[in-house]
Amino acid sequence: MLTTRFTALFGIEHPIALAPMGGSAGGALAAAVSNGGGLGLLGAGSAKDPAWVEREVEVLAGATDRPWGAGFQCWAAPVRVVEQVLERGPAAIMLAFGDPAPYLPAIRRSGARLIVMVTDLAEAHGALGAGADVIIAQGTDAGGHGGSRGTIGFVPVVADLAGEVPVLAAGGIGDGRGVAAAFALGAEGALLGTRFLATPEALTSPASEKAVLEGGSEDTDRSSVFDIAHESGWPARWTGRALRTPFSDRWRGHEDALRADPEVRAGFRAAEQRGEPDASVVWAGESLDLVTDLVPAADLVGAIARETAEVLAQVSTQGGYRPL
Amino acid sequence: MLTTRFTALFGIEHPIALAPMGGSAGGALAAAVSNGGGLGLLGAGSAKDPAWVEREVEVLAGATDRPWGAGFQCWAAPVRVVEQVLERGPAAIMLAFGDPAPYLPAIRRSGARLIVMVTDLAEAHGALGAGADVIIAQGTDAGGHGGSRGTIGFVPVVADLAGEVPVLAAGGIGDGRGVAAAFALGAEGALLGTRFLATPEALTSPASEKAVLEGGSEDTDRSSVFDIAHESGWPARWTGRALRTPFSDRWRGHEDALRADPEVRAGFRAAEQRGEPDASVVWAGESLDLVTDLVPAADLVGAIARETAEVLAQVSTQGGYRPL
Ligand SMILES: Cc1cc2nc3c(=O)[nH]c(=O)nc-3n(C[C@H](O)[C@H](O)[C@H](O)COP(=O)(O)O)c2cc1C
Ligand SMILES: Cc1cc2nc3c(=O)[nH]c(=O)nc-3n(C[C@H](O)[C@H](O)[C@H](O)COP(=O)(O)O)c2cc1C
Repeated sequence: MLTTRFTALFGIEHPIALAPMGGSAGGALAAAVSNGGGLGLLGAGSAKDPAWVEREVEVLAGATDRPWGAGFQCWAAPVRVVEQVLERGPAAIMLAFGDPAPYLPAIRRSGARLIVMVTDLAEAHGALGAGADVIIAQGTDAGGHGGSRGTIGFVPVVADLAGEVPVLAAGGIGDGRGVAAAFALGAEGALLGTRFLATPEALTSPASEKAVLEGGSEDTDRSSVFDIAHESGWPARWTGRALRTPFSDRWRGHEDALRADPEVRAGFRAAEQRGEPDASVVWAGESLDLVTDLVPAADLVGAIARETAEVLAQVSTQGGYRPL
Repeated sequence: MLTTRFTALFGIEHPIALAPMGGSAGGALAAAVSNGGGLGLLGAGSAKDPAWVEREVEVLAGATDRPWGAGFQCWAAPVRVVEQVLERGPAAIMLAFGDPAPYLPAIRRSGARLIVMVTDLAEAHGALGAGADVIIAQGTDAGGHGGSRGTIGFVPVVADLAGEVPVLAAGGIGDGRGVAAAFALGAEGALLGTRFLATPEALTSPASEKAVLEGGSEDTDRSSVFDIAHESGWPARWTGRALRTPFSDRWRGHEDALRADPEVRAGFRAAEQRGEPDASVVWAGESLDLVTDLVPAADLVGAIARETAEVLAQVSTQGGYRPL
């Protein structure tokens, strides 16, 4: 049993949270992670489709009796969608990528816990100022959007800053070794995204699932290319880590030219709608080398927690742990 | 006592190696680390100044009875300089950034151990093929030159590949929490560079030392700008992480323009020779937030080893370690 202030806060079994991957972490995946003893967070993303959020929360709340939550992108999500989710009684709302202030009154009124994900020290100070109950220190190793701090150097300084507020590590963690490393760095658990893409519950297309299983960490990189092509409005300070494609290779380093070329952007989006492989975006991170099999999400939570406990037991008695 | 296959191989006390920082890790620093119970590696770098290497090895060999070594950049270092160092009886030669093959016969003849630092999976396979006795998995979090893999995701896969060959983690590690995380990830120790810049023994100018003590991780970034300005010949696949300056901010993203402008490059080098702050290059990594005091190197080795042992003991009995 790995009891930490994070598990105690929510009364959950394992110090593992599902990253609220926008569009990919739907109600079924979040419920499976909660049912497996972790904290499942629905990926409400920018909440630009409130009906999707409503439907997936319905699925989630109906599929688990355990604590669950939902995550939103602050630069985009309307407050009323957060309020709508709060009516279903989540244990936590996770905020990231922008100013948490507009959401605080509703979250505080509801009694849900506030989790804030941060990508640099200024954001970490902001999260503490907002009264976060849990802070997630996300490194550039992460899949999807993020900043430029590396996980291994960022987590200890956020833990030092956070004092009594529990910290989770995120970015590049794919197994029990990574979760155990998070503990060593001062975190009280870990938030995993990429690893949970390879579960039957994730909302990934068969092609994306195949790409995740076959791709490796070195096939990913971080840029604004896809955000520019999508005209999504993502603030450029947070770039996205995704599988490289000929399109991203073509435009990385030439972002200004892509911004100036509406035709290329429209062509990309049209190809994406047609489902062309070069135009499909698969957000994924540095843990991808460790993602080689499809595992039911609840089993995955238990297996990672077990491996974490084994690693922690072994490293304390001998240097250098190796999987058996 | 943290005994690992790495410490056993060299008969040293602590699973901590000094990174062979070209020009900064001279004989005094390497000897101090070895005397403190770690493995001190002289930073012979590109060995473009064989007289410097000879002098510093002389200092090193005269200042310690413990095992020590020296590190070279394979894209640049002449074999004869390695041979010259081998005559002084190092316990190890560390090779990085290029093909180790030309150096192998001399190293094997001498009986010194071969340490190879790798920045991606292809290099890891190459190091195993070359018969490395120790492999260092270096993440992009590192100060100085490196690749794009993040430390937290890279170390476990290299450990899986390496099998019976011990692996050290490098990049973004600045204290016992980082070394303990390295263990959890499957490494048998860690190689630290940036942290050792803030020691009285490091060959750093007073201005650079001040910059290291005052700068933070978010003041660093990784690019080829300084290599282009230096006309150093560094292969562009390995970029360098250094403190940002107005010059690097000006030219990052415009590397081609800098390559095409000999006058700007000459102006930079002239300013560097005059010691102008904007033109001084301070290679440093993601651990910089943790580097806030100047500590004698031998003491630092002991303190980090002690903290590592404490962290490992604590995380095995409770989630979430915090410095006392
Ligand atoms: C497919 C995908 C979608 C993501 N979408 C979001 C999102 O909508 N909101 C958010 O806060 N984080 C999002 N993230 C980032 C995660 O919250 C988390 O930080 C990251 O997955 C952790 O790193 P890992 O992928 O290496 O485990 C996403 C990540 C992935 C892989
Ligand atoms: C100032 C400095 C100079 C470096 N020079 C070299 C070098 O000449 N050869 C080499 O193999 N690595 C060199 N490195 C990289 C180190 O070997 C090591 O990988 C790195 O310092 C580890 O990351 P850290 O700085 O975050 O501890 C250098 C690093 C720094 C900070």
